Amino acid sequence: MAKDIEVASHEYGAKDYQDPPPADLIDPEELTKWSFYRAIIAEFVATLLFLYITVLTVIGYKSQTDPDHSTDQCGGVGILGIAWAFGGMIFVLVYCTAGISGGHINPAVTFGLFLARKVTLPRAVMYMVAQCLGAVCGCGLVKAFQKSYYTNYGGGANELADGYNKGTGLGAEIIGTFVLVYTVFSATDPKRNARDSHVPVLAPLPIGFAVFMVHLATIPITGTGINPARSFGAAVIYGKEKAWDDQWIFWVGPMIGAAIAAIYHQYILRAGAVKALGSFRSNA
Amino acid sequence: MAKDIEVASHEYGAKDYQDPPPADLIDPEELTKWSFYRAIIAEFVATLLFLYITVLTVIGYKSQTDPDHSTDQCGGVGILGIAWAFGGMIFVLVYCTAGISGGHINPAVTFGLFLARKVTLPRAVMYMVAQCLGAVCGCGLVKAFQKSYYTNYGGGANELADGYNKGTGLGAEIIGTFVLVYTVFSATDPKRNARDSHVPVLAPLPIGFAVFMVHLATIPITGTGINPARSFGAAVIYGKEKAWDDQWIFWVGPMIGAAIAAIYHQYILRAGAVKALGSFRSNA
Amino acid sequence: MAKDIEVASHEYGAKDYQDPPPADLIDPEELTKWSFYRAIIAEFVATLLFLYITVLTVIGYKSQTDPDHSTDQCGGVGILGIAWAFGGMIFVLVYCTAGISGGHINPAVTFGLFLARKVTLPRAVMYMVAQCLGAVCGCGLVKAFQKSYYTNYGGGANELADGYNKGTGLGAEIIGTFVLVYTVFSATDPKRNARDSHVPVLAPLPIGFAVFMVHLATIPITGTGINPARSFGAAVIYGKEKAWDDQWIFWVGPMIGAAIAAIYHQYILRAGAVKALGSFRSNA
Amino acid sequence: MAKDIEVASHEYGAKDYQDPPPADLIDPEELTKWSFYRAIIAEFVATLLFLYITVLTVIGYKSQTDPDHSTDQCGGVGILGIAWAFGGMIFVLVYCTAGISGGHINPAVTFGLFLARKVTLPRAVMYMVAQCLGAVCGCGLVKAFQKSYYTNYGGGANELADGYNKGTGLGAEIIGTFVLVYTVFSATDPKRNARDSHVPVLAPLPIGFAVFMVHLATIPITGTGINPARSFGAAVIYGKEKAWDDQWIFWVGPMIGAAIAAIYHQYILRAGAVKALGSFRSNA
Repeated sequence: MAKDIEVASHEYGAKDYQDPPPADLIDPEELTKWSFYRAIIAEFVATLLFLYITVLTVIGYKSQTDPDHSTDQCGGVGILGIAWAFGGMIFVLVYCTAGISGGHINPAVTFGLFLARKVTLPRAVMYMVAQCLGAVCGCGLVKAFQKSYYTNYGGGANELADGYNKGTGLGAEIIGTFVLVYTVFSATDPKRNARDSHVPVLAPLPIGFAVFMVHLATIPITGTGINPARSFGAAVIYGKEKAWDDQWIFWVGPMIGAAIAAIYHQYILRAGAVKALGSFRSNA
Repeated sequence: MAKDIEVASHEYGAKDYQDPPPADLIDPEELTKWSFYRAIIAEFVATLLFLYITVLTVIGYKSQTDPDHSTDQCGGVGILGIAWAFGGMIFVLVYCTAGISGGHINPAVTFGLFLARKVTLPRAVMYMVAQCLGAVCGCGLVKAFQKSYYTNYGGGANELADGYNKGTGLGAEIIGTFVLVYTVFSATDPKRNARDSHVPVLAPLPIGFAVFMVHLATIPITGTGINPARSFGAAVIYGKEKAWDDQWIFWVGPMIGAAIAAIYHQYILRAGAVKALGSFRSNA
Repeated sequence: MAKDIEVASHEYGAKDYQDPPPADLIDPEELTKWSFYRAIIAEFVATLLFLYITVLTVIGYKSQTDPDHSTDQCGGVGILGIAWAFGGMIFVLVYCTAGISGGHINPAVTFGLFLARKVTLPRAVMYMVAQCLGAVCGCGLVKAFQKSYYTNYGGGANELADGYNKGTGLGAEIIGTFVLVYTVFSATDPKRNARDSHVPVLAPLPIGFAVFMVHLATIPITGTGINPARSFGAAVIYGKEKAWDDQWIFWVGPMIGAAIAAIYHQYILRAGAVKALGSFRSNA
Repeated sequence: MAKDIEVASHEYGAKDYQDPPPADLIDPEELTKWSFYRAIIAEFVATLLFLYITVLTVIGYKSQTDPDHSTDQCGGVGILGIAWAFGGMIFVLVYCTAGISGGHINPAVTFGLFLARKVTLPRAVMYMVAQCLGAVCGCGLVKAFQKSYYTNYGGGANELADGYNKGTGLGAEIIGTFVLVYTVFSATDPKRNARDSHVPVLAPLPIGFAVFMVHLATIPITGTGINPARSFGAAVIYGKEKAWDDQWIFWVGPMIGAAIAAIYHQYILRAGAVKALGSFRSNA
């Protein structure tokens, strides 16, 4: 036994963490608990608030800097402010919901964590449904509050900008979502949590910053989706053809990016640990 | 007894936190302690500093970008800078006063925490009075420092922007305050504090960011209140009719938003825990 | 003895912190240690880097947006960027030097902590000298790097803006420094450190944010000093009469603000604790 | 023995930390471990993502504010947004890779840590190669996504701005990298980690802020390198003569700055500890 432990702790001197067992594909008991439904409600509310604040920021910015109505073209929060709205809200909402639902607020994150066997299939599906419904309601609130401006200023919908082809848009969405989901995996890695004190403490902040960064870089290309619920909700309420024509980019891209992040984290970054763990368990 | 504990810890394996008992409606002993009066002074000073810094930022921005006096329309901190001033000051002041008074600095936060039975009635009332007085003094300082500009540039008062009806303004205040008070509840939840290491450590930062986010989104609609003391103080010092006509929006909206956040947190998110706790207590 | 402890812990149930004894006015032993001289070097280097980065940001911004040389008036970092430079550098430098020198980087902070008996007189004097020398060297570097622009664009010196009288400038400096030094006291309070987990962990961040906030509010009035070394260094290198005429404001204001913050913290916020402590000590 | 311990703990009362022994120049065993190769992959991926996000932000900003194509000169994220992109990405990526590779993402950081004997020579060389390759790939992606704009808008390459001589550029790079590497040393100092609770917890945040600050200050002079891999990758993909002519500045400057930071930290700030440690070890 002592030898086995030595194998397991070969790299770091002492095994000071414990990987939770992979989630079952389906866990019937989960469905009988209030905490399951509470988590779905929390995802719905968080995604609603996310879309409400961010799309309202987008519309407000465009209405204030429209040269037809305003003399002050510098008067809005700017694209920097919009990027802050998306990143900052994710920081706040991940902070608030992490203990309730895990703080996904994004079907791509849910998909990545499902691939890594951190959540069950029913939970993943229900989260995605709740996120999409929340996004629709959040955008609906913005439309109700900004009747005159909402449709004129693009409804906060994700569309490919002129001059970029679909491959570029898809690539931007894949890499952007990879940055986000890679950060989520790094923040929730039980091995790192045990070893680096900054990992569990800061967690929601770098996740929010990852969203902020990707928005700075790709707003000029796609408006930045990296969250299918966000793109879906805006498209439903905005309802213009162009937003629906490009919609697949904002589902396929994020899902591929999340899958690559899950593979990168589980197979490259954790591979050594997984092997050592396997040998440890087989002897225990 | 062992069985009871199992009931209580059904959801999370082990009950590792302790809910403080609900605050008494009135606690006469509290009134005899220096810490009670010290807390009221701290709320007064914090709200004074909050209004001083934020309204000074607003007036300074408007004076620098006024096309009548300035050739540099982009020369101010922008609406992004104003949103940072509000959010950043809340971060700093919650950090400084959390250990003294709980760091409310906002009657809506005090009201929400009172509804959740976290503070007594006399404390809630005295906090609100101190906050309103502090806000008046903070705005008074700005007016004293910016004689020539203060009234010309709107005095930092909250008013409904042209083109939005009262219902929209009220809705924006309700949802904005909900975001803030929901974050406050999440940050101070004893259950989450015991389980997630980032909750108690980061606490003042997401609270500040929640304020920052709501300002990004709703400055174009109402100037963003979500803090009745802030709206009241600016209205008193500014003193124009429009600010008083809309004043009720900035009291009714935040109070409704805070109440919804208190209900959401206590009945939806904590419901399971409350039930388990009830069964645990009744058997103990 | 048990009774005495009860007196001391009257307010909070259990006395879980220990106030360090007040620093001696003069501690001859301190002067024999390398850690004393190392701290002075660290203050010198930190203040040098602070002025170098911040004044370079100011000059770079003004050179990029000068309508005589540039067609892009929005091309600079803006006043928001300048405020970030000051606040962000304080965050970074307090983080880096806190363990070496306490991370003052500001004679007003040193003065406030001296009044509260946290540092000895020789240490306070030597820190202030090192800070002023560091500031002069930092500004000198900027002038060397920006020969053509430095003097044209005001040299980053603090001056009262047109339209504000000396009383307003002095008031703005007093309140601004109060915000900063109050935050420093809150962050370094041994009583709070023991009780609130976010206090010691976040400490450098709210101190940096306090500086950021004060700059947002008072750049239009005085350019924001709240740090006599910063104002002195820029005045020495810039050397124009106006900067020297107003120099007293940037020494008297911050020192008064720091003194008020020290009194507020020690006599109002900690009064109860101090009294209890006194009674505890007298019986021990 | 008791006497020796007293010598070691002379300054701080009790020696509560342990300096790891200096890394071997070459450690053959290291090369046999998966964790070594995993770290190199992580550095490659992180540097790729760093350049991808930041250069895409630069190109996107320039395309949006080009007066030839856009009517909205204030429509981009601004230089403030670019500085955030660089600093924010370093925060996110240091957070994600710190536990895997140490989170260097910069040959100058690797060089500084090698000088301080924190990493072996083969690791340092392999990290630098991985960082340079990652930077080339990241810039290549941006060029692929932004065909029409990439070359027109300077390719994100570091060049000396007009009006500054090479000495100024070199000086700006030296001091800028000093700020960054000094922060890295402060964040990873085992002595400080044991004593100040904020040091290990916040670590990635001030490192990112240091990068943000230096960009605010020196973008007008050199575009800000302080990372030879970043300058190299952009020069390879951009390929214009001017970027190659100035390239040496962005290698020599950062390396000198990192070396000075290593000397400052090891010989000035840690000197007392080193001496005490030496005497302790010689007697043990």
